[in-house]
Amino acid sequence: MSDVNQNLSYSFRLGISSDVEDTQAFRRNQTSRCSSTGVLSFTNDDLHPDILLDQGIEGFDYDPVQNKIFTDEGVRRASYGSIFRGASLRHLVLFFIGVFTGLSACVIDYAIENISKYKYRSVSWLISRYPHSLWISVPGFLWCAINSFLTGIAATLVVFLAPVASGSGIPQIKCYLNGLNVPRVMRCLTMIVKGVGVILAVSGGLAVGKEGPMIHIGSVIAAGLSQGRLRFLKYSLGCLKIFRNDQEKRDFVSAGAAAGVAAAFGAPVGGLLFALEEGASFVYQRLTWTILFASMVSMFTLALFKSLTRTHVFKFTPGGLVSFGTIESLNDYNAYEILMFLLMGLIGGLSGALFVKANSVLTRYRQKNITTKYNKIIEAILVSSLTTTLCFSIMWAVRDCSPLAYTSSSFPLKMMCADNEFNSISSLLFSTPECSLRTLLHDPPMTYSISVLSIFVLVYYFLACITYGLSVPAGLFIPSLLIGAGWGRIIGHLMHTIDPVHFSDPGKFALIGAAAQLGGIVRTTLSLTVILMEATGNVIVGLPLLMTLTVAKYMGDCLSEGIYDEHIGLNSMALLPWTPHSLSITKRAYDLMSNPVVFLYPIMRVSELVERVTNNLHHGFPVVVGSTDSSRFSYGTLVGMISSEHLALLLQKRAFLSKDGNIVYSLTYKDYDDAYPSYPKLGDVLANLSCDDMDAYLDLRPYMCEAPYSVPETMTMTRVYHLFRLLGLRHLPVVDSQNQVRGIITRKDLRRFKFEFVSGEYRVEELIFSRKM
Amino acid sequence: MSDVNQNLSYSFRLGISSDVEDTQAFRRNQTSRCSSTGVLSFTNDDLHPDILLDQGIEGFDYDPVQNKIFTDEGVRRASYGSIFRGASLRHLVLFFIGVFTGLSACVIDYAIENISKYKYRSVSWLISRYPHSLWISVPGFLWCAINSFLTGIAATLVVFLAPVASGSGIPQIKCYLNGLNVPRVMRCLTMIVKGVGVILAVSGGLAVGKEGPMIHIGSVIAAGLSQGRLRFLKYSLGCLKIFRNDQEKRDFVSAGAAAGVAAAFGAPVGGLLFALEEGASFVYQRLTWTILFASMVSMFTLALFKSLTRTHVFKFTPGGLVSFGTIESLNDYNAYEILMFLLMGLIGGLSGALFVKANSVLTRYRQKNITTKYNKIIEAILVSSLTTTLCFSIMWAVRDCSPLAYTSSSFPLKMMCADNEFNSISSLLFSTPECSLRTLLHDPPMTYSISVLSIFVLVYYFLACITYGLSVPAGLFIPSLLIGAGWGRIIGHLMHTIDPVHFSDPGKFALIGAAAQLGGIVRTTLSLTVILMEATGNVIVGLPLLMTLTVAKYMGDCLSEGIYDEHIGLNSMALLPWTPHSLSITKRAYDLMSNPVVFLYPIMRVSELVERVTNNLHHGFPVVVGSTDSSRFSYGTLVGMISSEHLALLLQKRAFLSKDGNIVYSLTYKDYDDAYPSYPKLGDVLANLSCDDMDAYLDLRPYMCEAPYSVPETMTMTRVYHLFRLLGLRHLPVVDSQNQVRGIITRKDLRRFKFEFVSGEYRVEELIFSRKM
Repeated sequence: MSDVNQNLSYSFRLGISSDVEDTQAFRRNQTSRCSSTGVLSFTNDDLHPDILLDQGIEGFDYDPVQNKIFTDEGVRRASYGSIFRGASLRHLVLFFIGVFTGLSACVIDYAIENISKYKYRSVSWLISRYPHSLWISVPGFLWCAINSFLTGIAATLVVFLAPVASGSGIPQIKCYLNGLNVPRVMRCLTMIVKGVGVILAVSGGLAVGKEGPMIHIGSVIAAGLSQGRLRFLKYSLGCLKIFRNDQEKRDFVSAGAAAGVAAAFGAPVGGLLFALEEGASFVYQRLTWTILFASMVSMFTLALFKSLTRTHVFKFTPGGLVSFGTIESLNDYNAYEILMFLLMGLIGGLSGALFVKANSVLTRYRQKNITTKYNKIIEAILVSSLTTTLCFSIMWAVRDCSPLAYTSSSFPLKMMCADNEFNSISSLLFSTPECSLRTLLHDPPMTYSISVLSIFVLVYYFLACITYGLSVPAGLFIPSLLIGAGWGRIIGHLMHTIDPVHFSDPGKFALIGAAAQLGGIVRTTLSLTVILMEATGNVIVGLPLLMTLTVAKYMGDCLSEGIYDEHIGLNSMALLPWTPHSLSITKRAYDLMSNPVVFLYPIMRVSELVERVTNNLHHGFPVVVGSTDSSRFSYGTLVGMISSEHLALLLQKRAFLSKDGNIVYSLTYKDYDDAYPSYPKLGDVLANLSCDDMDAYLDLRPYMCEAPYSVPETMTMTRVYHLFRLLGLRHLPVVDSQNQVRGIITRKDLRRFKFEFVSGEYRVEELIFSRKM
Repeated sequence: MSDVNQNLSYSFRLGISSDVEDTQAFRRNQTSRCSSTGVLSFTNDDLHPDILLDQGIEGFDYDPVQNKIFTDEGVRRASYGSIFRGASLRHLVLFFIGVFTGLSACVIDYAIENISKYKYRSVSWLISRYPHSLWISVPGFLWCAINSFLTGIAATLVVFLAPVASGSGIPQIKCYLNGLNVPRVMRCLTMIVKGVGVILAVSGGLAVGKEGPMIHIGSVIAAGLSQGRLRFLKYSLGCLKIFRNDQEKRDFVSAGAAAGVAAAFGAPVGGLLFALEEGASFVYQRLTWTILFASMVSMFTLALFKSLTRTHVFKFTPGGLVSFGTIESLNDYNAYEILMFLLMGLIGGLSGALFVKANSVLTRYRQKNITTKYNKIIEAILVSSLTTTLCFSIMWAVRDCSPLAYTSSSFPLKMMCADNEFNSISSLLFSTPECSLRTLLHDPPMTYSISVLSIFVLVYYFLACITYGLSVPAGLFIPSLLIGAGWGRIIGHLMHTIDPVHFSDPGKFALIGAAAQLGGIVRTTLSLTVILMEATGNVIVGLPLLMTLTVAKYMGDCLSEGIYDEHIGLNSMALLPWTPHSLSITKRAYDLMSNPVVFLYPIMRVSELVERVTNNLHHGFPVVVGSTDSSRFSYGTLVGMISSEHLALLLQKRAFLSKDGNIVYSLTYKDYDDAYPSYPKLGDVLANLSCDDMDAYLDLRPYMCEAPYSVPETMTMTRVYHLFRLLGLRHLPVVDSQNQVRGIITRKDLRRFKFEFVSGEYRVEELIFSRKM
């Protein structure tokens, strides 16, 4: 035990606040005791020191606390009246989540449409004034200036006010729903920055969409409305206290995310499936209801708004922020076409994986080199200028003219074409991405030449790739769909050239290509099928879409992860996948657990508690009895668990026993409710204890979780993982056959090992954890 | 303890084989020790002796066994090659599940279509020969005779060969997927009887559909193909052994059920959602893939078959066995119509709940009075004759004629109408239910008068109600849709009369009515929306359908359970709902657990084991060490669990230690695989042990589950329930703080209490369990 003690004292000297450091040392001694069961040989020699998991992000605890206070509150809420009131309130809250998500979609849509209209109108007016001469650069400069200005504001807002609002937000929402408390992701300010930012970014002509950010916005609306609290006004709606716990909040956020999808694509069922497939890590029946209700209301709100502004009231059309329109030609397809679709799925998978890889390299470069706030803003402005300059130069250089009647674009530029013609590439580059998508899907076969389409695809691929990861709110759905629709239309064009009778409509192939490309990048097949099905308003397209997307997913998965998972990995988030690695069966609970653990006793002097926890600010402490050893890391029988948040609250409220055993103050449920979710920090509370407090005693029994789940130390990792993930735990004590605590497993411990197959050999590497800077 | 011992000895004398009887006695002593935590008052006086749970049906264990043999096998399967082979095999099996489910749908469709065609053709030929005179009774008799004959054969097959094939099969599949091993439900014979039976029943003119049975058929195909075993030939496909466990089998069955829905309605996504909402109690990502893949293939197979026989190859049309056709008028709707849809949802909910209640009363009557096989057959024949007679009399009595051009029916009867007219009610009653549905949805506004529709709705409501529960395979989807389409069309008709311009198409209301009625009866809202959406091939109908179905569900839920849950209750199955009752928080593990428990020791003499278990044939035994008491119910420290199946296998294979400690025989994984799922019965094995065997020792350590999940006795029922249900356990040991076994919780224990709110008071009743006769 000598070097164990050395290691321990080392940890103490440094005052390391994570479970993990101590463990690394301890485990070395322990693993020799319990040999691995497997028949495989593991090499554990060369660790990868560059694989990090962010220790700064904490997890949620979805297992309800079971102590006297919470149980009594649970019983009170189990009354018939409370249940009925709860259900009504839930639906009311969901209704408003849907309405507000729908309304934000309306506002975003309206703002982008109008800003873009004025922008394109002024630029095209200038272009029409100076079509031929050198003066053509004047509108170019104007366009570039407007775009850079808009993008610059978006980036400034994001960088200074809410850095977490950059990107699509889907990786963050995915982590949040998986149980990771991503900081500031659910703040009101984040949402406002996201909303304003996406308006500016899309109007600023970047290769971004507004659909991804809608999902983030919906989630924040849900989180905010369900908690019913205005922190800066210190106002809190009493009736919503039943929703103030991690579990309820998570469910509302799922519903909000789905409502966002529903508004973005007019796809309530798609939204539900998206939330289930991509987001919600925990699925149960009431949740599906909750989600669907909110999506329905959200979609309905937007549809109503659209019907008010565009057609007549209640005349609903399919689609949401983006709508594809009906593609009649997809109602039947023959065997050749099915083969083509599958082939396009392959292409989509390949091209998607390439996109992910390229973007991943770029993101890593950005993480290392573009770190200051001003650099981030400058980068965004540069990318915006590059985008505009590139688009304008191409429009100027590529003189491919088509009859004006062919296009459905709102601002077809004449440029150097004849009077009743337009510059075909301008209807792709000189309009909002949604309009470009519609033209690709619906314009007649000969509108665009193959060279125009090829240039468009290459340029847009490059632009989308460098844009995703900028410090602006940026959705990836629309750029992916555009790239795919572009190369899909090329294939359609080729087919049309070969056999104009059977392959009359390249729009069919454009849609399939769009699906393939998007599927290759994001890899959410099932929900995408339904989303695209609902966005086109046609069920028959479901089958070919599903086939294409499935192939794209499998192909892509062979080469890289999906873009969201890639970004989650790049941000070192400890996401728990649905199922553990199959080699997890070779590891046991004792391999995983962090150890030694800091224990508490049911009744203890505050001074003793302070001594124990001061340098060990873990997030959960087992409560034990009958420890036979006087050292602070001795083993005792597990009787409860208490989280650091609850302990901090206890100490802050001075819920002590006086020296003569009288209760000074008992916590009530209200204390917990008032504190949620911003419990006091344990470190701060400890620093504020007076000498009198130190002499008092603390009775943890009414406050600790009385009956924690625990696992025997011999349980395989596979089963530990299922227990941990299905129940949404945060701390899982490991006990021996006498129920004595041996260690503790947290979310990070389940990511402790990296299992790999390298040239037929099995490798298990233990990851090095570090707190992210 | 004296009366505990009395109770014990009483139990022993009777040789009671269930955990429960002993518990009843024991609990009385124990509950006094641990008082309830709640603030509520419970009355426990008047028990309901008529509420039974069927003890004969055992549960599955979805928690993988963790012992040396299974873990080693798991490690072997974790190799890269094995994983790849496993995934390929899985997809291959799923592909064939889809193909065979699709093919069975084709066969059923083809058979019903042709039998019905010949039947209706002959009867209508006879009717046209004797249209006016008294001779009209001749075709009536013929029709009645054909129908009774067909129904009679169907009932005979079901009653004598596979009683479990009666009804739609959905309640049974739901129970199976929930973890209940419903006997004989997955047998090949059951499937054949179901298939032949449904052909005969639908051709026999009963008010039944073929869609529900397709789900059962798909499930059986999945169970059979995934296990790759022909028991009567003693043939077993070695490569499929990886799928031979409860968990894999359950996942394949989910996929099969979804494939059934996909074939029935042409709705692959709907099938997935149906499997998730109604069936699969355990949802994870790979499962959704599995399910979707099989549904896609199944739908594709049927669509290909349909395109081959009806249009040209690969020209796909929406729908499966039933298709609704496109209802263009549903593409827009105004505010009044939305209100109407909601109102129709209310009507659907009411009428659905009434249906469920009436059918439930009838089923209870049947369970008591129609018990012999012959009575069941006679009942089916009587109902068939009544159906035919009623239909024929109505056709004869109601002389409502419409122009022949109005109908899309294949056999419009002229009866007493003019030459270019037809008897309008005949196109509803004198055709297959699918055709009647199409006519209701698509025939022009004035085809049917309100009186004709009213008569049809009333008659069909009555017939559907008495038919569901007969001993024939009978789906409930189509009858429900027909009833709803009927009264929906009445509403459409009224609206059309009021304002022919705005409400031009009663088909729109017919569809909404159909959805409302079906939703009111089965209460699966989400999946039904998608199913109906896919069956009509139109996405825009999604929103109104969803609204209607939601209202219908909520309305119906206020009055009764859904029909499937009602039938599950009537059959006393211990289904575990998604979430426990909210009052569960008032109960703790010690209230639930069965106690005393029969323990085993890690190493014990066979004779001692036999003595222990002979009269206590439980399904799982905790293995303990360090029991301090010599009585057989003393408490010891939990070190493992072993199921009766595995114990029986051990004993049957004589996996003993000889008296001098040598291993006589060690079980291998192959032994387990060969035995699955028909392990030897413990009782039989015990009876066959010789005197030599009795002297041997049994070392349970390599065979028991080393690290069972367990819960502390103070854990609330809510948390116990989540653990039990999410992990799909079968036995859950309850331990005290020293890890000593205090009791055991099984599925039935979670249904032990009936929580009720009666006039503002809370009541908890303890149910009496009994083995069903």
